[in-house]
Order: sequence, then C-alpha cells, then structure tokens
Amino acid sequence: MPKKSKYCLGLDYGTNTVRALLVDIANGREIATAVFAYPSGRDGIILDPKNLDLARQNPDDYLLGAETAVRKTLARARRADKTFSPSQVVGIGVDTTGSTPLPVDASGEPLCRRKEFRRNPNALAWLWKDHTGFAEAAEITALAAAEHPEYLAKCGGTYSSEWFFSKILHCLRVDPKVFDAAASWVECCDWIPAVLVGETRPGRIKRGRCAAGHKAMFNAAWGGLPAENFLAKLDPKLGGLRDRLFNETCTSDVSAGGLSEEWAARLGLPEGIPVAVGAFDAHLGAVGSGVFPGKFVKIIGTSTCDICVWPNQSPLADIPGLCGIVDGSVMSGFFGLEAGQSAVGDIFNWFVNEIQPGGPKNGSHAELTKKAARIKPGASGLLALDWNNGNRTILIDQRLTGLLLGQTLHTKPEEIYRALIEATAFGALTIIKRFQEYGVRIDEVINCGGIAEKNPLVMQIYADVTGLEMKIARSAQTCALGSAIAGAVAAGGHPDFASAQAAMCGLKAKTFKPDAANHRVYEELYPLYRKLHDAFGTAEWTGSLFSVMKDLLALRDRQLS
Amino acid sequence: MPKKSKYCLGLDYGTNTVRALLVDIANGREIATAVFAYPSGRDGIILDPKNLDLARQNPDDYLLGAETAVRKTLARARRADKTFSPSQVVGIGVDTTGSTPLPVDASGEPLCRRKEFRRNPNALAWLWKDHTGFAEAAEITALAAAEHPEYLAKCGGTYSSEWFFSKILHCLRVDPKVFDAAASWVECCDWIPAVLVGETRPGRIKRGRCAAGHKAMFNAAWGGLPAENFLAKLDPKLGGLRDRLFNETCTSDVSAGGLSEEWAARLGLPEGIPVAVGAFDAHLGAVGSGVFPGKFVKIIGTSTCDICVWPNQSPLADIPGLCGIVDGSVMSGFFGLEAGQSAVGDIFNWFVNEIQPGGPKNGSHAELTKKAARIKPGASGLLALDWNNGNRTILIDQRLTGLLLGQTLHTKPEEIYRALIEATAFGALTIIKRFQEYGVRIDEVINCGGIAEKNPLVMQIYADVTGLEMKIARSAQTCALGSAIAGAVAAGGHPDFASAQAAMCGLKAKTFKPDAANHRVYEELYPLYRKLHDAFGTAEWTGSLFSVMKDLLALRDRQLS
Repeated sequence: MPKKSKYCLGLDYGTNTVRALLVDIANGREIATAVFAYPSGRDGIILDPKNLDLARQNPDDYLLGAETAVRKTLARARRADKTFSPSQVVGIGVDTTGSTPLPVDASGEPLCRRKEFRRNPNALAWLWKDHTGFAEAAEITALAAAEHPEYLAKCGGTYSSEWFFSKILHCLRVDPKVFDAAASWVECCDWIPAVLVGETRPGRIKRGRCAAGHKAMFNAAWGGLPAENFLAKLDPKLGGLRDRLFNETCTSDVSAGGLSEEWAARLGLPEGIPVAVGAFDAHLGAVGSGVFPGKFVKIIGTSTCDICVWPNQSPLADIPGLCGIVDGSVMSGFFGLEAGQSAVGDIFNWFVNEIQPGGPKNGSHAELTKKAARIKPGASGLLALDWNNGNRTILIDQRLTGLLLGQTLHTKPEEIYRALIEATAFGALTIIKRFQEYGVRIDEVINCGGIAEKNPLVMQIYADVTGLEMKIARSAQTCALGSAIAGAVAAGGHPDFASAQAAMCGLKAKTFKPDAANHRVYEELYPLYRKLHDAFGTAEWTGSLFSVMKDLLALRDRQLS
Repeated sequence: MPKKSKYCLGLDYGTNTVRALLVDIANGREIATAVFAYPSGRDGIILDPKNLDLARQNPDDYLLGAETAVRKTLARARRADKTFSPSQVVGIGVDTTGSTPLPVDASGEPLCRRKEFRRNPNALAWLWKDHTGFAEAAEITALAAAEHPEYLAKCGGTYSSEWFFSKILHCLRVDPKVFDAAASWVECCDWIPAVLVGETRPGRIKRGRCAAGHKAMFNAAWGGLPAENFLAKLDPKLGGLRDRLFNETCTSDVSAGGLSEEWAARLGLPEGIPVAVGAFDAHLGAVGSGVFPGKFVKIIGTSTCDICVWPNQSPLADIPGLCGIVDGSVMSGFFGLEAGQSAVGDIFNWFVNEIQPGGPKNGSHAELTKKAARIKPGASGLLALDWNNGNRTILIDQRLTGLLLGQTLHTKPEEIYRALIEATAFGALTIIKRFQEYGVRIDEVINCGGIAEKNPLVMQIYADVTGLEMKIARSAQTCALGSAIAGAVAAGGHPDFASAQAAMCGLKAKTFKPDAANHRVYEELYPLYRKLHDAFGTAEWTGSLFSVMKDLLALRDRQLS
C-alpha cells in the first residue's frame, strides 16, 4: 500500500474574499480550493460616502469565511479523491492583507461585537487601504525623522497612513471611546491564527514578525516596538498602549499553537494540528512563488506587492522609499524586502467598472485588452501616472492621485486602458530601479496573481517596459500555497521554507521576453513618466514641463507614420 | 395694404453642416431655417488615420449645401407664411469657418475637381482645425519674431498652424505639385460669395478683411499682406505667390456683387440681390449676438470663439496671446478682437462619443449633466486642462494636449464630465483676464451657440468660475443672423451694423448669475488650473507642482464633509 499523502491547508485572506487551498506537501499538487466572499459592506468593505479614505472590515466575516471555505474545500477534496480523509491534513497556514489591525478587548473579542459599538466603523478591522490616518502618518514620520531616524530607515523613510500606528493614533484622535475600550490592537494575520488555536488573549497571541516589522516599526535593533516615550510624544495614551501590544514576534515557520477543539469541529479538521504564525499575503505569496535572492516576485492583484529576500548576513543599505526591510518577514535567515503599488488591477477595474467606457459592447477587460494590444507603444500620445490610490513605493504618499495626459479629440478607451497598464509598468520599473540602485540583485522577475495569469498583454508590456523577462509562478494561488508551505514547515513536514519551496513550487513554461523595438520606445517614454512622477510626487523637484506634451506628440507622430 | 416685409438670408458654414436662415430685417424675426450636413468624409471632414493633424473638406459640399439648405428654407418660409415670396429676399450674407483656404486655378475652380488631384487631400479645402502645418507655423513665427515683430503683435505673438500661410507653406513643402498648380488660394468665406456672384477669378474675388486680417497678417499699417521678401525667405515660391493673392480687403457691410443668374436659379432667389463680403462665423455670430464695446461675446460650439470690439479711434495696446486685433474684422469703425478655445463642445462630445462612459444608460450628455449638476465645486478632487485640441488663446499652441488629474478609484464619469466643463470655464476665464489686463472693458458676457442655449449647467459653471453674469443671445442662430445682418446692410436695408443690431438682435430673459459660495471655491481652484496651464503650456515656467494633488484632496475633503 502506498504511503498516504500529507496535506496542508492554506488560508488566504484577500481584500474581498478568503480562499482555502489544500496542497500535497510532497509535490505542491493543489487538490481542492474554495473561495468565500465577505458578506459585509460593498464587496466586503465597509465604506463611508462622506470620507473616501475610510475602508473597514467586519472580523466576523473572516471567521464565517474560514468555516465556509474550508468545509467546501474539504468536500471538493473528497469528490476529487475518494481516498482523501481530513485526517491527512497536518497543518494550517494563514495569510491576510495588512496592515489591517482591529481593536479587541482583554479576551481578544473584537470591539465591534459590543452593542455600544455596533454601528461604529472605528470598532471594526481597519483595512490596509484605509487612509483616514494620513495626517497621523505625517505626524509619526515627522517625529521619527526628528528623534528616531532609524525607525524610518527600515521602512523607506516615510511612515504610511496604511500602517498600524497611523490607524491606531487616528482612532485615538477621532474616537477616544473606541481607543479607550481597546485592551489591545491585533493585526488580522495574528488574530485569525489566535482564534483558530483558541488563545486570543492579547498578551498570549503569537505576533508575526512580518506585520510587526513592516508596519509597526518592530526591530530587534531597538528592542522591538518604538520606544514608549516616542509613542507618548504622539499621544500619552499611545505610549500607554505599548505595553498592551507585544514584545516578541515569530517567523511564519513557527507554530502559533494547535487547532482548538472548537475550531477543529467547525472546520472538520483534526484537533491539535499546528497553525503557523500568520503573515501578510504578499510575503507568503512570494514564498509560494519561489522567492529567493535574485528572484524578484511581483504579486499582481488589485494592488501589487513586490517582494524579494536577501541573506541577513550580507551587508544591505537602508533603501529609501521601500515599505520595509525586515529580518525574517518572508523567510528565516533572510531580510524580507517589501515594495508595492497601491493600485494596479484596481486601476483597470476602476476604468472598466466605474468609468464603463466603450458603450455596451466594447468596455470589458477582454475587449479593451484585445484592442489595446494592437496599439504601438507611444502611438496614443498618452501618458498616465498610476496613483489613483496613492503611491506606496517609492514615494510612500497616499495624498497623490491619478493623472492622464495627452488626450486629444481622437483618444479612444483602449488607448487609455493601455496607458493605464503602461503607467503601472512604469511604476513597477521605478521600484525595480530603486532596488538595483541599492545593490539588490534582480536576475529574474516571477509574477503571480490573477492579472499575471490571465492578461498576457499586461505581462508583455511589463517585459517591454522593464526590459526584463517576465516569468509566471506555476500556482494560480501563490498566497494560499505560501500559507500551506508555512503550515507544512510549522508541522515539521519540511525542515525550512527553501526545502518546502523546492518540493512544492514551480514556474509556468510560458514566459514573456522583452521586444527590443518596443523596449527602445519605452526607454524614451519612461523619462517623461519619471518627470511627471518627480514633479507631482516630490517636494524637491523644480523644473519645466513644457516639453512633455510636445515630446509625446512627436513620438506619437513617429509611431503612427 | 401693409408694407411687405423684407428678408435677408444668412448662410452659416460650420464645421460639419451649413445652415440657411431667413430673417425679417425690420425686427430680426427668423421665419425659416434649414441645415445640410456635408456628405464627404466623417461628418463632413476628410481625415487621415495616419496623420491625426489632418482635416480637410470638399468645397463641392459647400455648394450642394447652399442649394439644398436655401431651397428647403424657402419652402419652409412659404409653409410658415402663405404670403411669403422669394422676391422679398433683398440680400445674402455668408459666414464660414476659418482659416479654411483652398487652392484654386486661374478661373477659381478648386484644384480638387481636377482628375489628377481627385484623391489628394492637399487639393481640398484645408479646414480650420487642420494642424498639419505646425512646423511651418513655428517657422513663420520665428522669422516674423526676428524680422517683422509687428506682424506677430497683431495676432497674439504666435502664428498658428490653423492659419492661412502655415497651411499653404505646408502644402508647398509636402506636395509641391498641388502648390504649383494653384493660381491662388482663397479663404472659404471669400470663395462662396465669389461663386454666388459668378466672379471666381482670384484677382477679382473680393476678399474679406476678417479672414485676411486675422489669419493672413493683412494690415494697412504695412501695406497689406506680409512683404514679399518675408514670404520669400520662408520659401521663394511663397514669395512668388504674394502677387497672386490680394492687395485689398473689404468689411462685410460691403457687397461682393449681385447674385448671378445661375445661382439665382439654383437657389430660387432674385437675380442681382447683393451678396455681402464674407467673414468668419464667430465674427458675424458676434454681430448677431449684439457685440459692442463692453459686451463680450462667447460663441460656444465645438470650439469657442470670443469676440469683442473696441473703437478704432481709442488707444489699444497689442495683446499677447490673442488670435488677432483687426480694424473692421467685425464692424466698420471698430477693432475686432478675437480669442477662442480650440475645443469646448468637442471635448464634451469626445467624452460622450469616443469614451462612451457610464455604460448603456448613463453616458448621454443629458444624464451626465444631470448627475454633474449635483456635484459641488471641488468635491471630485479633479482638475483638467481643456487642451484636447490644443490651445488657441492665450498660448496659441496646437502641440498641447488634454490633461486630467486627481482621479481616484472612486472617480465617476459625471465627475470627469464636470471637470471637463470646469476646464473650459477656466480656459474662458484665462482669456477674459487677458483682455481685462490690457484695458479692454468687459461689462457683460453674451453667450450664444448650442451649448449656451441647451446646457444651463455649463452656463452656471461659467458664471461661478468667472464671477460674471452670463447672458444668452436671443437668437439660436447668431452666426446665420449676423450673416443676414451683413446681407441687410450690404443691401442698404440698414445704414450700418449697429443700426441693424438695434433692430434685429436681443437677449433672452433667463440669465445666469454667479453663486457667491461656488465662486469662492473656484477662486481656490483657478490658481491650480493656472499652475498646470503655465507649467505645461509655457517655456518660461519653472517651479514645483508637489502641492497640486494635495491641495485638490484637501479641498475635496472640505467640500464633502
């Protein structure tokens, strides 16, 4: 009788849905998966029409999602393989969006469950893309720049409104009742494993290195979280919170505990199997894509995360504009380097779903892509900035917006669609250049996520703009796969992430090589993008923009003739 | 028996159609009208997909249009008034777009009728919005700046690609066969009256002061057209053309001749009735709107022309950036001052017809206007430049393009629509300010044209942005009415334009007063528009744009809260 396969379950909490994925730890075979859409708000996000910066989530959606998606996955696994038994599942890993902190009471219950806070969005989870704390982010940046520049050096030089303390400080300022009622604040990626293992008391929750290091300025070099007197200068109450947060963090190859009896029953899985310490989706997505020094991973979804790793024994300068350099945030023994774009697929979706161009027939992603593919680089005369949701790297500034330039009376929807794709490609190139300038080697780019999978035009434009070959991760669910890998390592099924990756990850055969002629045109366009980028995005820039429209028209005329 | 009414016929040649209008010269009553759409090309314009700057027209469309529209108008007049007889028509006036020159042979036949040029767009009429001569425009500007700055001083400091000599010189450069075959070049507004009076030999055609002065640098101060040696320096053949053009020009209160026997028969009108010397649509539109010193007329259509007049005995400085200051171009005894925006309605039409936003139901002008009217100034966070077709005033630069800034992932089509309207309003304000800075008094703004008539939102935004009351001309066809007035004066029915205006023009009761609160918001937005305008539109500007997006977001947040 052949040895029975062992499986791990990856739970991937995205912006609108949660996915469960069951993976064979010997070879990465994905035997079943299921997705659950969060029922609250609009596509799972609670919004405020009077405050477009606000984006919250209901943490109970996460738990209902775990139960529903896991049970459906297990049922599908049984249908796919009659011999499958849930007893073969040996570990669970969890990734989530972030920074998505939620205020909890002393037992770890989310405050939003309390009657007095039921309709209060401040008691919900503060979704990564909530930008209400932009003023607080600036305040934190200013104070750190003056008193603790080392805090900023590891997170690109600017503390973002998307991050942990900006959100908590904003809550303190606008809704002190919620702040005062919170025994602690917990990142979503820490809270879900805590629920699954049945230990949600804030002081006992195992906190992930990834969220803490990238979003809460946690670093062993200064003894963990920022100093109490630093936080107290922002607000005495914030200083008082420090002791109610955490002092230690773990990498995701560590178990957060065994699956509780209650949750074993709810999920239909064996009690006591290890649940790995949680991490952010992109970081575990990079693991599932095969990240390693020299292999730059782009997880392209509604937004984009770029992740690479670098041996933590090698010298590495602080890199301005990155979202973080954190030892162990991706893999033990390596610095995890995170960058990203605040919107990529979201920009294309905005154009298709909000602007709804092209009349009844021609406005779908498929139609626009088909027509955009026929346009030569530069031939539309258009140039766009990819800032409809701000800029996460290298400017770290949410108070930026989109820009489209070069429209004539002939401009067509597919030309704008292509310009938006190109804008995100120029944004990606800006990030890659920043890594390279600071000595991080990039031998290949591995892409993953829905857009990388489904839109060859986007991948070809990325190759043509960057001049780099674009490869695609084999798995369509690299985040969930990365979580399953974390579960597998936490359960002892593999000794470390690299061994698990060797067994469980791969690349697709199809890759996208840069077209030399197109690349040359984009080498002319990129300086114009960069000029707009610097003009609108940096306080230092002064100069002239008089040539921009003229250069675009000259290039257009050349490409059309 | 009551005295029989006398009528004049105005022929208004627009970009896509020609309109005939029959007007009672005693009171301006419009008894019948008809429109004819040019059959050639796309909406009457011959385009080249490989050269988006190219826009030509078939002059035979003009003649077919005259016949069809006039006959239909007369038939309608008979139906409206049983006693009407064509014998009551005492004069004809003609206005056209411009500069729209066409190459003709020695008998005045358009070259495009020749077999060898049948498929050659260079032998057609070069429509006002043809920008193929942008390089030649720059060349003419540079030479005039060096050797004859006085030429430029009367046309805003820059010679435009939309104008007479840019087009002819471009033809000479790219298609010398057409240039060599041309005995002369004739403005459309001169050629049509010439055809109607049966004298098309170039040397005998009465040329209008309006086209010559505004577009061909004709000025009595330097003996008419630019000096032969000036033109010869651009190209010896252009110098050689000067003598085959014209030495004299007339104002439009003068008769170009009597209606020929042939055309009297074709139109169904009395032979010999005076046909006034032609002028541009906007100039006669201003006459039909009641232009007079202090009364600033905006003719708002696909593009916008702004016209005002100033006594030619009063001192008036050269005004940089204007399209022209020409004695008699609008009314005898007054300088005619022309400015304008290269696209206004065309920008709104582009958004609705090319971009087709809002899905099947929400993308019409009516729906977008309804929704845009509910948006507060500044509340979208958007700011646009109105340069999709270049900038006619005050930059005089066709090598400029549109810009939209401030998009988020929430931006809606109606917000963009409103931003485009606001952009044209900011453009209008920029022109008004320029006039005022140089001492031209503006007591009131009289608007006319389809958009002024039909879109109260546009008019209200113009009032709110400029802080000036917007009035609307009584006639819906002020250009055709102005032509009819020219016909009436040329026929001796009124002694001069001012007397004819007093009898034949008026205003609508409904006007648009600025809302003080909205005006204050626009006073904050305009400096941001102006900053973008100067940054992308002037060679001199250097500075920082870092605050633009942030200021827009701050204003948005204030207006939404």
